[in-house]
Amino acid sequence: MSDKVRLVEVGPRDGLQNEPGLVPFAIKIALVERLADCGLRHIEAASFVSPKWVPQMADGHAVLTGIHRRPNVIYSALTPNLKGLEAALAAGVDQVAVFTAASESFCQHNINASIATSLARFAPLLALAKEQGIPVRGYVSTVLDCPYEGAITPEAAAQVASALYQMGCTEISLGDTLGTGTPKRVRALLSAVSQEVPLPQLAVHFHDTYGQALVNIYAALEQGIRIIDSSVAGLGGCPYAPGASGNVATEEVVYLLQGLGMLTRVNLDNLVQTGRWISQQLGRRNGSKVGLAWTK
Amino acid sequence: MSDKVRLVEVGPRDGLQNEPGLVPFAIKIALVERLADCGLRHIEAASFVSPKWVPQMADGHAVLTGIHRRPNVIYSALTPNLKGLEAALAAGVDQVAVFTAASESFCQHNINASIATSLARFAPLLALAKEQGIPVRGYVSTVLDCPYEGAITPEAAAQVASALYQMGCTEISLGDTLGTGTPKRVRALLSAVSQEVPLPQLAVHFHDTYGQALVNIYAALEQGIRIIDSSVAGLGGCPYAPGASGNVATEEVVYLLQGLGMLTRVNLDNLVQTGRWISQQLGRRNGSKVGLAWTK
Repeated sequence: MSDKVRLVEVGPRDGLQNEPGLVPFAIKIALVERLADCGLRHIEAASFVSPKWVPQMADGHAVLTGIHRRPNVIYSALTPNLKGLEAALAAGVDQVAVFTAASESFCQHNINASIATSLARFAPLLALAKEQGIPVRGYVSTVLDCPYEGAITPEAAAQVASALYQMGCTEISLGDTLGTGTPKRVRALLSAVSQEVPLPQLAVHFHDTYGQALVNIYAALEQGIRIIDSSVAGLGGCPYAPGASGNVATEEVVYLLQGLGMLTRVNLDNLVQTGRWISQQLGRRNGSKVGLAWTK
Repeated sequence: MSDKVRLVEVGPRDGLQNEPGLVPFAIKIALVERLADCGLRHIEAASFVSPKWVPQMADGHAVLTGIHRRPNVIYSALTPNLKGLEAALAAGVDQVAVFTAASESFCQHNINASIATSLARFAPLLALAKEQGIPVRGYVSTVLDCPYEGAITPEAAAQVASALYQMGCTEISLGDTLGTGTPKRVRALLSAVSQEVPLPQLAVHFHDTYGQALVNIYAALEQGIRIIDSSVAGLGGCPYAPGASGNVATEEVVYLLQGLGMLTRVNLDNLVQTGRWISQQLGRRNGSKVGLAWTK
């Protein structure tokens, strides 16, 4: 376990999207810029979904065109369909992401379509993205448990991941949406999925709802995963358990990786200050234990 | 990784001792009884230290003699010296524990003695305990980092653990007092200590100050450790970082172990209710994410 890990910072998108209330776009811009200054090299900065469904993300264009871009940083956005991709391209994204689920009922509830329909919608998007030379990440949510169906088999998750990869997604992020995973199930999941998608193209996206995110990340690292999604200050909640944690805090992941000698490029002190700043701006409790304990 | 794990519940002692304010002894008794009803089989229930130093623990006798004892449960107490052991024996403990540190300066600050002096004090205690057939656990704190000295070498920790074991302690608990550990250092520590003390006699005691406790526990399990200290609702704080977490929450440990198929005897639902109850009694935020998210 000595090679390098890539972090995908999802706080400005997945995090803020799941916070109550609207965040001024000046705050979003400052957050994205601060995160880049911390040394993070991939920041999911916006979402081009219908503002009717996700009003928190209506200012994606303003955010992406408002930031001072740092070199060597990938600024990406979530795009559910061709229209979203066009808007994201107009705003100058470096990369986009599509999202579906491993659970049929979750997919239906979340994006009002079957898994098959969701995949079909991505086809024209992937074609245009390829033409424009824009990589597309594929998110698969509820890879372990679904709030409606319960346990999801590793094979079901692998099948959806495989479909996205075959369609041209360059990277697949596996989301433990409910945060119910533990290492044994994570290992079974990754064994199944890595038969369909090469390990270097797989990312893990753990929620810390039951405090298991970091141990699952460690188990994934042991299996060879080297791309990890996380959110500064643990931004974002869990819609299925109000008051519970959402995304794993980036600070905790960086602390772990630095301890393992697998990441030294991120400035943890700057990251802690950024997590404290955004928590204060949002009037929320800092969701990072590193952020609460850091005394430097 | 299929064998059984033993949990040592330290909430009533290490947890409450580090909470601000005095807790009525009726609450302590109810807590110990509820924990036993959850299926926990080793509960550190009291401390026989001078009430001048630790007023929170002055009612050890009342607690230990007040509880209705469940069969097959070990009720233990912390005893710094012979006088403490005599008081603990009078209260009917099943097991006692002594404590020292791997760091010379921490030992000096914490118990006002050198490591060597602390060990010498344990000799008559261990002799009497042996005579009475009472097992003695040895705590070694600051096994990774010290607030005064910084990093502690695995060899220094191993030396103190070895001394306690040689003197007759039946079990050695290694404490990451500052919660700064990560798995790589944990592995180095356990490799060194297990050359001096057999693995089945080693316990780990992680604080979650930086959110790393569970991942360190997992790394310890992978190394063969099968005794884990934890505290319901994450009771107890960190005196070195006010507002930060202390002991790892028992709920999170049980959730992990059940997911790994290594522990099925503890009733997690009862444990969550107990954690919520004691948090409410103390007017504190529940320190367990499982406790916050649990919806059953």
